[in-house]
Amino acid sequence: MSRVACIGAGTVGRAWAVVFARAGYDVGLFDAIEGEVERTAIPGARRTLELLAENGLLTEDVDTVVARIKSASSIAEAVTGAIFVQESVREDVAVKREVFTEIAAHAPAEAILASSTSAIPGSEFLTGFPHPERALVVHPVNPPSLIPLVELCGTGVTSPETIAAARQLMTDAGMRPIVLKKEIDGFILNRLQFTLVAEALHLVGEGYCTPEDIDAVLTDGLALRWASIGPFEVAHLNAPDGLQGFVDRLGPMMRQLGAAARTDYNWTPEQIASAHAELSQRVPLDTIAERQAWRDRQILALRQMKLREQNV
Amino acid sequence: MSRVACIGAGTVGRAWAVVFARAGYDVGLFDAIEGEVERTAIPGARRTLELLAENGLLTEDVDTVVARIKSASSIAEAVTGAIFVQESVREDVAVKREVFTEIAAHAPAEAILASSTSAIPGSEFLTGFPHPERALVVHPVNPPSLIPLVELCGTGVTSPETIAAARQLMTDAGMRPIVLKKEIDGFILNRLQFTLVAEALHLVGEGYCTPEDIDAVLTDGLALRWASIGPFEVAHLNAPDGLQGFVDRLGPMMRQLGAAARTDYNWTPEQIASAHAELSQRVPLDTIAERQAWRDRQILALRQMKLREQNV
Repeated sequence: MSRVACIGAGTVGRAWAVVFARAGYDVGLFDAIEGEVERTAIPGARRTLELLAENGLLTEDVDTVVARIKSASSIAEAVTGAIFVQESVREDVAVKREVFTEIAAHAPAEAILASSTSAIPGSEFLTGFPHPERALVVHPVNPPSLIPLVELCGTGVTSPETIAAARQLMTDAGMRPIVLKKEIDGFILNRLQFTLVAEALHLVGEGYCTPEDIDAVLTDGLALRWASIGPFEVAHLNAPDGLQGFVDRLGPMMRQLGAAARTDYNWTPEQIASAHAELSQRVPLDTIAERQAWRDRQILALRQMKLREQNV
Repeated sequence: MSRVACIGAGTVGRAWAVVFARAGYDVGLFDAIEGEVERTAIPGARRTLELLAENGLLTEDVDTVVARIKSASSIAEAVTGAIFVQESVREDVAVKREVFTEIAAHAPAEAILASSTSAIPGSEFLTGFPHPERALVVHPVNPPSLIPLVELCGTGVTSPETIAAARQLMTDAGMRPIVLKKEIDGFILNRLQFTLVAEALHLVGEGYCTPEDIDAVLTDGLALRWASIGPFEVAHLNAPDGLQGFVDRLGPMMRQLGAAARTDYNWTPEQIASAHAELSQRVPLDTIAERQAWRDRQILALRQMKLREQNV
């Protein structure tokens, strides 16, 4: 079977190893911390695979899949013979440049080189090595083993063939890729997320509501729709005449509320401390791990539900 | 059993009738269009109740519940003896003022008077009648028969007792109320929704991605988390040290992406037409009713899933 390399075996890197291993690839997994892959990354990958299996989202048995993930003792060893390399190291442009120099020196010339970066534009570190047309950002949502969306973004010198091949590989691996037509800070997902969060901080900071109210607006309101139909389709389904009819009626309100949003709100450390105190009442710090496990089960139950309904 | 009145029997009013009837109230339902209640509202309520029953979200049989909804031939008839009145007429301040004058003249003095308005501040039409301290906005998400979140907002003269009683009544009826501490345009849900939509229109309008990409970012990304945990809890669960740790690390990025959002983006009619064309490829106008039914089934399946998981 084809071989994929994952460079960096933290939370994101080990989740990528799960994605590629369950898609049938042999995975070379490397981390700069010696022993980290055997000690925590592969056991962590196994737990994720068990969770997927328990939720009916794994077609093979866990041992078969986990056996495909192999510890590599160097970047060179991990990327040798790989058709695809996914980097998930620290968000530090100097570190990423160094890592990609090493990757590019040892990976096959036709391998696709991808970075998980969420915060650094790919053009700042994906062009300083031979054949930069094969490199792009493939930004996952954490963790990609549970959440299918990935954002593909070229650097300006990335070839259309590279983008098309990465998109196909992601689709075949069960992910849901979108392709950005040009680079923008935060890509799409984090821009939408932190635009909403910024207005939420404004509403809480100015005393209109609490963080708990904001969370309820999502969990018991907006996200009940958005989990199945996105915001454009929500509007399109709002009337027999579709999106156009929606905007004809509600365009003025859309413009008004957009203009009224205060996403540049200058929230203070005291406001964050106060929100943290409220959150820590709801979810005490010593129960976070347990609640994270609950969150992951909820995500998988929702994905199962959606798979069932798609087939109705 | 206690009696509730629903004034206005359009999409929102008839969904409210379902909410109150399934909670055991006798419902007096009035619409200004003669015959509308019998012709479309009660049959529509029956279909919604059947859908709830099919999804295990109704504890009684449909006939029993639907029999509680009775057509009233006037506002006076509907509100006589009611403990709670929910108005859902046209979003026109003059019409609402007139309707509330009539409601206030005939409802018991101790009845709570609520408006479903989403666009007009309650202080503009809920104070010009005797005992305005009993009136408030109870803003549902459409349709309240499927989506539990409701936003309660006083007018400034609304009494704390009224707000507390409305909150309790909503909770007892299976809804999830939040209470705004002061009035703001769009309340919380629509501000968050249209802040995100405004940035989405900016990203699409400036050619970074398509409406379909935006929708995928929600359905296969953000909303897989938000359906169970809201944005504050997402951050709180992101690290062992909770929200404070998240902001310590990612605060600068949060500020940067918030400031970079262009929620005042001046989208053009051509951009809307282009988005409408894309949406109409995905969901042709003549399939909207079918897709709406699918959306409703998805919402109910998700609510069922969440009820199951809460009990794990």
